[in-house]
Amino acid sequence: MYLAKILITLRKSILDPQGKAVRHALQSLKLSGIEEVRIGKFIEIKISSKNKKEAEKIAEEACKKLLANPVMENYTFSIEELPA
Amino acid sequence: MYLAKILITLRKSILDPQGKAVRHALQSLKLSGIEEVRIGKFIEIKISSKNKKEAEKIAEEACKKLLANPVMENYTFSIEELPA
Repeated sequence: MYLAKILITLRKSILDPQGKAVRHALQSLKLSGIEEVRIGKFIEIKISSKNKKEAEKIAEEACKKLLANPVMENYTFSIEELPA
Repeated sequence: MYLAKILITLRKSILDPQGKAVRHALQSLKLSGIEEVRIGKFIEIKISSKNKKEAEKIAEEACKKLLANPVMENYTFSIEELPA
């Protein structure tokens, strides 16, 4: 069993109004030094596959076909093996 | 300038209906081996502070006061220095 940890972030050129709202909220809580906030997704998928290579292929396909919007988002992931 | 990368995940005991929906969607795309999906947030904050220690303190406070719901969520973060 493998665990894919997937990070999905907005591309740099895309405005992030949710991040802007969070920045304002943090500033009104008197937290100093907050310059920019960007919000993305973190997705964990447990994959049962023969080996790590295959788990990578499945995670890649999941990102491409469903999880990330290629026009607006980037994705990266890492795969780790779970103890049986 | 520092970049805090914050991961917010649902606690294990909390049901994740969004993750369940994504799992079903991946399975109906004929992706094999998908056992479980859990969805969290990934938040990047640029912090201007004197040193890494202070940036850590600000990130910790942001998580506690606003970003994570301590009843339902866990958070972890890492801080890296950005080139000036």
